[in-house]
Amino acid sequence: MSLLVVGSVAFDAVETPFGKCEKMLGGSASHFSISASYYTNVRVVGVVGGDFTDAEQTVFDNHGIDTSDLERILEGKTFRWEGRYDYDLNIAHTLCTELNVFADFKPKLSAAAKKSRLVFLGNIQPDLQREVREQVPDAELVALDTMNLWIDTAKPALLRTIRGVDVVIINDAEARQLTGLPNLIRAAREILSLGPRALIVKRGEYGAALFTRENYFAIPAYPLESVFDPTGAGDTFAGGFMGYLASQEKIDEAAMRRAMIFGSVMASFNVEEFGTDRVRRLDEDEINARFRAFKQMTHFEEIPFERAVRAML
Amino acid sequence: MSLLVVGSVAFDAVETPFGKCEKMLGGSASHFSISASYYTNVRVVGVVGGDFTDAEQTVFDNHGIDTSDLERILEGKTFRWEGRYDYDLNIAHTLCTELNVFADFKPKLSAAAKKSRLVFLGNIQPDLQREVREQVPDAELVALDTMNLWIDTAKPALLRTIRGVDVVIINDAEARQLTGLPNLIRAAREILSLGPRALIVKRGEYGAALFTRENYFAIPAYPLESVFDPTGAGDTFAGGFMGYLASQEKIDEAAMRRAMIFGSVMASFNVEEFGTDRVRRLDEDEINARFRAFKQMTHFEEIPFERAVRAML
Repeated sequence: MSLLVVGSVAFDAVETPFGKCEKMLGGSASHFSISASYYTNVRVVGVVGGDFTDAEQTVFDNHGIDTSDLERILEGKTFRWEGRYDYDLNIAHTLCTELNVFADFKPKLSAAAKKSRLVFLGNIQPDLQREVREQVPDAELVALDTMNLWIDTAKPALLRTIRGVDVVIINDAEARQLTGLPNLIRAAREILSLGPRALIVKRGEYGAALFTRENYFAIPAYPLESVFDPTGAGDTFAGGFMGYLASQEKIDEAAMRRAMIFGSVMASFNVEEFGTDRVRRLDEDEINARFRAFKQMTHFEEIPFERAVRAML
Repeated sequence: MSLLVVGSVAFDAVETPFGKCEKMLGGSASHFSISASYYTNVRVVGVVGGDFTDAEQTVFDNHGIDTSDLERILEGKTFRWEGRYDYDLNIAHTLCTELNVFADFKPKLSAAAKKSRLVFLGNIQPDLQREVREQVPDAELVALDTMNLWIDTAKPALLRTIRGVDVVIINDAEARQLTGLPNLIRAAREILSLGPRALIVKRGEYGAALFTRENYFAIPAYPLESVFDPTGAGDTFAGGFMGYLASQEKIDEAAMRRAMIFGSVMASFNVEEFGTDRVRRLDEDEINARFRAFKQMTHFEEIPFERAVRAML
């Protein structure tokens, strides 16, 4: 079982109505790999600067995450993102983005990385995602995240990349924007027609849905009375989803459905505290308890066989 | 098994991007009772004018709906609503409302109506809802719908009415508006603290959630590739929900959960055609098939008991 993620490792500054943090470990690859580490071995492909210290490295080490493909440019600075959320925590207001060493990022995969069984292409430029994907031709399952920026500025490249992956993981606004179709079910069908065998649509507080050619599966979000910091929730979801799949011998519909639950469980923990703080110190019991809560809150009894629907008079 | 509904019987004129209908049977009591008629005996309390003809009466008769408490004011005109939907079918643009005979509506309940086991207070002025509720003191379960207009203009009256009912059925924007709380889980807790034992939050294309003091239950909407006319979807949901409960001897959590599914099934049919057209000609097989589709699209396997979540290293 081996899982590769390519994406950003960053320093985030985040302000929400509930608090402020000037500098913390963030980025798609960080959120993803810490989340996935509870299920499988993860290897990170990314780039950091000279300001990436032992403190950050220790976080990855503590979770058994392989950082030998994490490039270090000692004379450069790590990618930095600064954002703010108002009371509507669904909308991130970007205040500042400093690409720094990430500006010239060319993912390089070691021989071991190229043998990964599963690959997650975090939200980076679609041509780079495709270059990574092509370096892992024997991967059993490759998933991709993207964002509105690439749909706006690099749509042909993105569509080419989507044709070469197995699973697309985006939010509902992105699915509509990518296809130009307001109806999500039609948008999903169009995205699947490009090639992927599954599409996951993240709906924030409304949960998530899994579309395949044959099936539709939808789950609510875990009900939280307070969301502290939503940064990284999507990547944490993807980490739980891909991490669980990597732990399974057979990746079928049933495994994908359970993986959706584990992804949602991890995302629900992520938003409870700043950055990766909450997800860093999870244990198996907490994860399993929340999985069971999902079962409890979605369960209903089958229709009674002999149910009498009154015929029209 | 007996179910009473008080609400509007109306003529609707609706325009959507997909078509236009100048005059059709509408109103909360119509949508509700036709939907509920597939499960139980329904009695309608409402008022219509001299323009309410045999054609409309026949619709109620064909569904075995008791209209003996439907007042007729021959010299008046039936309530009329005219609305338009753009491509975002979640938003109804009201073009015209003529209250007509509905302006002076004072619900009068017959002796038989006062003995109803279940009552649905459709979306009318909250003081009128309370008057009806007080005339059915022995009802086993009373549910209420409302709208932003009453939250804006009659909030104290609405809160008093809510204190006297068992189930509140509203949409998520209304739950937030009623409580002033942006977090839906907190808003739900506050509404339950007023007295009702259950709150149902309708979320349109995202499904619906059931909050009780002990439990949370959430389901997606049935995935539809085209929504033709959403008018009456909420009342059709309530009709399926209350109708199914009325058919059950015991109204417990399990029955409420199944009732949520039947409500969603009925609403999903409602939006496929104009007004009540689709729901009028349903049969038991169609309803049961869609119930089973809900089971299929929400099912996932329990967590394996021996699941190995990797301990942190």
